[in-house]
Amino acid sequence: MLSALELARGLEAGTLSLDDLYERVAERIAEREDEIGAFVNYDLETARADAGRASGPLRGLPLGVKDNIDTGDRPSEYGSPIHAGHRPAVDAAIVALARRAGGAILGKTVTTEFAFFEPGRTRNPHNLEHTPGGSSSGSAAGVAAGFFPLALGTQTGGSVVRPASFCGVAGFKPSFGRLPTVGLKFFSWSLDTLGLFGKGVADVAFGAGALAGRDWRIDGASHGTPHLGFLEPQPWAQADDDMLEAFERARSLALRAGAKVSSVSLPPVFREAFAAHQTIQDYEATRALAAEVDMAAERISPKLRKTLEDGAAISAEDYDAAQETALAARRACAEAMATLDALVTPSAPGAAPFGLASTGSSVFNRLWTLMGVPAVNVPGLVAGNGLPLGIQVLAPFGRDRSALRAASILETAFANG
Amino acid sequence: MLSALELARGLEAGTLSLDDLYERVAERIAEREDEIGAFVNYDLETARADAGRASGPLRGLPLGVKDNIDTGDRPSEYGSPIHAGHRPAVDAAIVALARRAGGAILGKTVTTEFAFFEPGRTRNPHNLEHTPGGSSSGSAAGVAAGFFPLALGTQTGGSVVRPASFCGVAGFKPSFGRLPTVGLKFFSWSLDTLGLFGKGVADVAFGAGALAGRDWRIDGASHGTPHLGFLEPQPWAQADDDMLEAFERARSLALRAGAKVSSVSLPPVFREAFAAHQTIQDYEATRALAAEVDMAAERISPKLRKTLEDGAAISAEDYDAAQETALAARRACAEAMATLDALVTPSAPGAAPFGLASTGSSVFNRLWTLMGVPAVNVPGLVAGNGLPLGIQVLAPFGRDRSALRAASILETAFANG
Repeated sequence: MLSALELARGLEAGTLSLDDLYERVAERIAEREDEIGAFVNYDLETARADAGRASGPLRGLPLGVKDNIDTGDRPSEYGSPIHAGHRPAVDAAIVALARRAGGAILGKTVTTEFAFFEPGRTRNPHNLEHTPGGSSSGSAAGVAAGFFPLALGTQTGGSVVRPASFCGVAGFKPSFGRLPTVGLKFFSWSLDTLGLFGKGVADVAFGAGALAGRDWRIDGASHGTPHLGFLEPQPWAQADDDMLEAFERARSLALRAGAKVSSVSLPPVFREAFAAHQTIQDYEATRALAAEVDMAAERISPKLRKTLEDGAAISAEDYDAAQETALAARRACAEAMATLDALVTPSAPGAAPFGLASTGSSVFNRLWTLMGVPAVNVPGLVAGNGLPLGIQVLAPFGRDRSALRAASILETAFANG
Repeated sequence: MLSALELARGLEAGTLSLDDLYERVAERIAEREDEIGAFVNYDLETARADAGRASGPLRGLPLGVKDNIDTGDRPSEYGSPIHAGHRPAVDAAIVALARRAGGAILGKTVTTEFAFFEPGRTRNPHNLEHTPGGSSSGSAAGVAAGFFPLALGTQTGGSVVRPASFCGVAGFKPSFGRLPTVGLKFFSWSLDTLGLFGKGVADVAFGAGALAGRDWRIDGASHGTPHLGFLEPQPWAQADDDMLEAFERARSLALRAGAKVSSVSLPPVFREAFAAHQTIQDYEATRALAAEVDMAAERISPKLRKTLEDGAAISAEDYDAAQETALAARRACAEAMATLDALVTPSAPGAAPFGLASTGSSVFNRLWTLMGVPAVNVPGLVAGNGLPLGIQVLAPFGRDRSALRAASILETAFANG
């Protein structure tokens, strides 16, 4: 894998040249892209040329951009045959900001259909018979395969944290609204959140901070001894034995690293909020994709069509009530986290499931997307079958750096453990 | 002017034919479009054909769609030369919903540049030397001129309520999020809100309810005697003598109509919130239009370029603080309105100003856009120079029908007064 921070430092110090970097990337892609299928399209030549003209913190680093995010200079197909060959007029805001920060767009990465559940062709670099997770499949797999040091993804349910966990990379979903979603193909406007994939926690902190224009960097700083709340099992999200073991291991390693550790359970409003996520998502998706349904319903997968039909049956009253529940839960969330630096949960029910027909479950992520709080997948643990397992770190809304710091402490503890 | 409700009833009863309706519209456009300039483009033939196939509550009614809202079957230029001739791949969600409800898209209406302050070519139908208001200039003017019974607009500052007031039509900005903004050219994602123009309050209630899939109709119902709070003058928004007189007249007429009337003043947090609106808007606009700035800054008006430069200088900390202020003010807003059915304020500082170089001021609207509460312009009063004056009715978040009912009572009182 490529560390964005290390590459940026090498480029700055002159110990690495852009030619060397892009050659290395080209080799990795030539070796593995055929079997992994991370890209919808890529263009090494254009990226190398853009990198040569780039300045800013990202210094010409090649970036993967999930294909539900508009790019003005190449197709943006949203994982749907309805939009095959579609060329947006302009870059999405986040792509423009990435270019301003010095990033070079290497390619568009595979998304599930409209960033929902119908898989694309991407395979897990750790075992090609397993899903890479979704919906940001290509971005997570491409970072894991060393195709690019950073990649943009989006999360509506668990589409950043889950594929990061399955692919053994760091994933960071900042607080809702911190990265602009203008130019995203929306699925659920109350939930769709941009996120970033990288090798390690410090890499995504560095990259996301450069995009957000915020001081999120955590490299080189001492993180002290945080107060971490380990979440008690929730009735709606069952972890498998591998994950339960990893979670306990994370707790021991955190203690050993000097963190203060508590067990935290959530008040009942969160159970309602978990259900409210789906009500809000499906109600909004039915409207967000109304044009596609009316124009080309037959080119929408049966899985998504069913969701959109279900969404159409949700009443305005139920939607409003779900939004009210979300609001109440956000207040409860702030209270539940008030004395903590971060909350720790599994990133997913277990390691990447076998097979490519499903991208796995987002039950461990949906609630936190709805809460709008920063979420980080900490890589570094391993399941019995050798596949990666991730631990999810959450912090109060707006305290993104607190989440990143706590995640970094766990990451170091895993590496030393 | 055309009443959407009357037309829909006529079409249902068979006392009006689509041919008659579209002929009448064609005549009005032939008479006045040259001098008013409400449209960027229109297509009577396509609209008539669409209307013939339409079913649903809107029954083939011709609609105006502000040109910052995507249409898949015709250009969407966002009021900017950068996007001249741009053809989106699909309809915006609200356009798809309008078609589902039976509406026929007659044309795209003039917006100021990216729905900010640089005017388009539209003139006020009541006096061609005066601005129609903005940014939804063509939608407001086109309803006033009888080109269409309903038109879509958007409001980030005061772009629905203000032009409705200047053009003497009803304008309705529902609670934030009630109409989907997917497929809108965003300027400020925390503020951009869809709204509707029509002849009277019952017309916009009927139209917006059909789009939202909500029971917002108020025609045929008795509205009782509401408790209306008339807002004390606010330091940030000075009305002229015409408007002060109209506001007092509205109070007397409301009392005479049997409403309970109180004077309401706002706690200090609203002053901060008024300032927060601009911080949030400019910070977000700088990001929403990042691609346009980087691609074609020279084709952005000096006025907007200045705003985007100012926005780029706003720190993340100031933006976050403004969002915190907005959140606190929303809670205070709910409290301030808790015992009221609606709050009443001027819609604008006065009647439409002379000249076309400015679309007037949104000082009476920005705070309420930020609060996300439903806002209605009630037409029917007149300034000394004969131009229309509107009164703004607001209700607590989510109580859209309460705002519409109170607005309807005032509208009737004005008509009877």
